[in-house]
Amino acid sequence: MKSPIDFYFDFSSPYGYLASEKIEVLAARHGRTIDWHPILLGVVFRETGASPLTEVPLKGKYSKRDFARSAKFHGVERFRLPSTFPIATQGPARIVLWLKVRDAVLAVATIHALYRAFFGDDVDISKPENAAAVAVGCGVDGAAARAAIDDPAIKDALRRENEQAIAAGVFGSPFTIVDGEPFWGMDRLDQVDRWLATGGW
Amino acid sequence: MKSPIDFYFDFSSPYGYLASEKIEVLAARHGRTIDWHPILLGVVFRETGASPLTEVPLKGKYSKRDFARSAKFHGVERFRLPSTFPIATQGPARIVLWLKVRDAVLAVATIHALYRAFFGDDVDISKPENAAAVAVGCGVDGAAARAAIDDPAIKDALRRENEQAIAAGVFGSPFTIVDGEPFWGMDRLDQVDRWLATGGW
Repeated sequence: MKSPIDFYFDFSSPYGYLASEKIEVLAARHGRTIDWHPILLGVVFRETGASPLTEVPLKGKYSKRDFARSAKFHGVERFRLPSTFPIATQGPARIVLWLKVRDAVLAVATIHALYRAFFGDDVDISKPENAAAVAVGCGVDGAAARAAIDDPAIKDALRRENEQAIAAGVFGSPFTIVDGEPFWGMDRLDQVDRWLATGGW
Repeated sequence: MKSPIDFYFDFSSPYGYLASEKIEVLAARHGRTIDWHPILLGVVFRETGASPLTEVPLKGKYSKRDFARSAKFHGVERFRLPSTFPIATQGPARIVLWLKVRDAVLAVATIHALYRAFFGDDVDISKPENAAAVAVGCGVDGAAARAAIDDPAIKDALRRENEQAIAAGVFGSPFTIVDGEPFWGMDRLDQVDRWLATGGW
């Protein structure tokens, strides 16, 4: 059995959202599954000295235009820049890590629901009660999801996830690793696709 | 007649090189020509606070891998990371600006020759004599090309080119502007292609 594709993402990353809508179908074409890794770009950016895209002169204005244009280009109909952006994503990331070891299928459904709530419906998922409510919509126990956000063991799990990501060379979102080969960005999914088809070049 | 596509690039930019090998055929498919704008990323980066890719922690190591992988992916056979990299590119940029107003066709041939010398044959084109020698290989007067690098009027022209680029919102290389619509990166040529075909979306 082929190993899963590691997919690292921050819930506040527009390109992470776009890729999240495409990566499973892409992987399935090659008989692969996805291992979803929610991370915090803020932690990763401490390593690289990067700033949130929209806060960089020139690049910020361009990025907002490119998010919307790229969403349409890739056929992701539900996209608008949230009114609060970027956001801290500890809450949704912790819900996913808590859920992942309990029900992997439900965790994936919740990832999509959280991303769509933020980028599709302008729900501020940085707020624990909002993130938990989105999970409830997927059939998750709301009180347990809400409690997971403040659970020291889950906080530790997210810290470990960030550390492991940095150790693996991850410095952005989305970041896809296929059999050890790293691909940064939504705009490398074309290379991911060919890599999966050919085993590299 | 449709207006030309503005293509901004730094001679030290690997993705600029890759795009330079693809943009003309792409443009021609849509009945367009290219207006080539050599700029200095160092000047542009002062606006955005960016650093050369290969000098950024984590991202630097990835980038070197991605340059070579992307070259093969896009079918650009002649690519290797030059032994001196990145380089200052005032010399080749000034030769191009000097040549552009004299012989536009020869200027384009010289752009390709300079890029291929640097990324294909590891010629350090930051050295005026090397840049001039490459131009000679295209049929340019070597002494005149060499003199252009130190010509105050050409230095001014490059300064203006950088200022105009920043005013147009350019913050990286390659940077392509189609009828006012900006596209950053080699990995937006797919969107440039569709934009030219459809007039936007």
